[in-house]
Amino acid sequence: MKRHIYADNAATTKLDAEAFAAMKIWLLDEYANASQQYSFARKPRAAIKQAREIIAECINAEPQEIFFTSGGTESDNWAIKSAVLANLNERPHIITSAIEHKAILNSCAAMQNLGCTVTKLPVDARGVVSPDDLASSILPQTKIISVMTANNEIGTIQPVKKLCEIAHEHGKIFHTDAVQAVGHIPIDVKNLGVDMLSASAHKFNAPKGVGFLYVRAGVKLFPYLDGGAQEYGMRAGTENVAAIVGMAVALKKNISALETNQKHIIGLEKLFIRELEENNIPHVRNGAEPTLPGLISLSFDGKDGEKILHRMDLMGISISTGSACDGNKNQISHVLKALNLSESLAKGTIRISLGKNNTLEDVRAIVTALKKVLGD
Amino acid sequence: MKRHIYADNAATTKLDAEAFAAMKIWLLDEYANASQQYSFARKPRAAIKQAREIIAECINAEPQEIFFTSGGTESDNWAIKSAVLANLNERPHIITSAIEHKAILNSCAAMQNLGCTVTKLPVDARGVVSPDDLASSILPQTKIISVMTANNEIGTIQPVKKLCEIAHEHGKIFHTDAVQAVGHIPIDVKNLGVDMLSASAHKFNAPKGVGFLYVRAGVKLFPYLDGGAQEYGMRAGTENVAAIVGMAVALKKNISALETNQKHIIGLEKLFIRELEENNIPHVRNGAEPTLPGLISLSFDGKDGEKILHRMDLMGISISTGSACDGNKNQISHVLKALNLSESLAKGTIRISLGKNNTLEDVRAIVTALKKVLGD
Repeated sequence: MKRHIYADNAATTKLDAEAFAAMKIWLLDEYANASQQYSFARKPRAAIKQAREIIAECINAEPQEIFFTSGGTESDNWAIKSAVLANLNERPHIITSAIEHKAILNSCAAMQNLGCTVTKLPVDARGVVSPDDLASSILPQTKIISVMTANNEIGTIQPVKKLCEIAHEHGKIFHTDAVQAVGHIPIDVKNLGVDMLSASAHKFNAPKGVGFLYVRAGVKLFPYLDGGAQEYGMRAGTENVAAIVGMAVALKKNISALETNQKHIIGLEKLFIRELEENNIPHVRNGAEPTLPGLISLSFDGKDGEKILHRMDLMGISISTGSACDGNKNQISHVLKALNLSESLAKGTIRISLGKNNTLEDVRAIVTALKKVLGD
Repeated sequence: MKRHIYADNAATTKLDAEAFAAMKIWLLDEYANASQQYSFARKPRAAIKQAREIIAECINAEPQEIFFTSGGTESDNWAIKSAVLANLNERPHIITSAIEHKAILNSCAAMQNLGCTVTKLPVDARGVVSPDDLASSILPQTKIISVMTANNEIGTIQPVKKLCEIAHEHGKIFHTDAVQAVGHIPIDVKNLGVDMLSASAHKFNAPKGVGFLYVRAGVKLFPYLDGGAQEYGMRAGTENVAAIVGMAVALKKNISALETNQKHIIGLEKLFIRELEENNIPHVRNGAEPTLPGLISLSFDGKDGEKILHRMDLMGISISTGSACDGNKNQISHVLKALNLSESLAKGTIRISLGKNNTLEDVRAIVTALKKVLGD
């Protein structure tokens, strides 16, 4: 039986065994609704409190700045839409980038349908937003500026701190979609200065269906899911205790081992690129330093990314052509378009995303497979 | 050590052991992002498809009419807000009832802040909405009518089929929050005729953090969480495979044993009321037939519901004063207010909600404890 090699860690990650072990008691025995008043609800309430503290510490935030959500998509929708909806009569303006995740871009489009205006900042050939472009795009009615920390298709890391400074010079709120970054590169919200930050648990070895929105104390927040008084009255819905606990355990573990993991993954990445070159496989690498460790976007001129993916799949290797979230698989991704990649290169693009569980053996096997696929 | 008696099944329920067993593989081994194109993603995609079919069958819907969400709150927000937001320039009108869950009422309030108008239908002393009141409240600009199937505090079941008929006679969309009902009483969406229906998994022995919105084929739907193309492009976000599978297994199990469970729970309820009477405990029961099996709202004139709850808790019994989702515990609930209960009765109200796991012994112990607490 062929060995399965998972090289799509940007799409999702394997749940950490310790996180699962920590989740079980909240799924099976301590199942109380954490909002109730009897003692049976005290343990889940305490567990949520502790998880909030752990997660806050992981990104240098305060516990009351962490709001649990159902994932990155909800966090992004919340950040973009709630501030806009609260000011709808002022015809609000949103600034974002051309290479954001669809959770941001489609949230912006939904607000556009309600009469908002949206500026999508371009990126250079490396995929980087220009601070000057941001500065010149800010309008009096700009209500939110949202630029992602790291791109999910090409890995480019944006100059978030600098962009945030510009936003604040103009008195604007700055949000960053850090779904691909949290748990993988150091994130210090106080140092970055961001007002809001989205994260998704399943991207850092925690369960699917949970995430959080960091909101700096003092930033005016409006609920997006209305109902009960959970999450300081800001996000209604019975708390998903097990998932929240699993998220905290997995994030803490990844953050504790961040340097080790980064070193390991960057080692794999370097080996990968070296092997590509030693095997004389002609390629263009998209995105430029700094990028997310292990996220490798490669374009093979004149080749078909879809076909490469499927051939690799037959050899037991899971890779991607781009985002996991794009419905129309035949279109060239908006990210590659924004890079001004030629159609021939864009169509021949694959994404390999290595994680902490990958090995040197995995990398060599992927390159061997790629060589075979591209040579055929 | 005193035995713990859980009698708050309307707040949340114990996860079914078979549901947990079915979830494990999706948490641990088959962790692929179900939207990806390689074979590793095929199994979770098939599992979601199967779960959708199972859930559809449980409520007599079609699979493509089931949209997975993060729970009842999201389903309610989606149903109320998305249709309204899509027609905001028409100053839409919403009709709901005075005793809805906060997920509905606060969603309506949020839309009111955007310029909508809202009519809250009153209820009679039993907690029932009048079809005539609904008919006379419908306006040309009414965009959605939302009346819950069964109330979470008093258990009253509304004449949903009749209300829905009236809505349709006027060409209006009818939604029902069936969070307390699904898995506990027979729900047949085709027979009821509803256009949309909200459900929450953790209310029927499935995990927290997942639910669904039923949307009848042909009803125009707008996304509330924008982003990726998941859920037929209507609800973005990486699918929470394990939770979706757990929900399907638990719901199917509850529906398969619905008659048996109902009979058991109604038996417990009857015993409870008989024991109350035989012990000469003066009480008023809120809500009237038809009510949710096992949901018993009791008012003790001149007593303090909070104190009863805490005394019962000390005896190892978990009960509630009302909804689990109300932040301000010192206020009289909007449901009891709508019933025109005297303040003295309202303050002395508790909710006991029995489930399939409760026993005759539990019921006798609860009454014994109540008698002690109320006699002191």
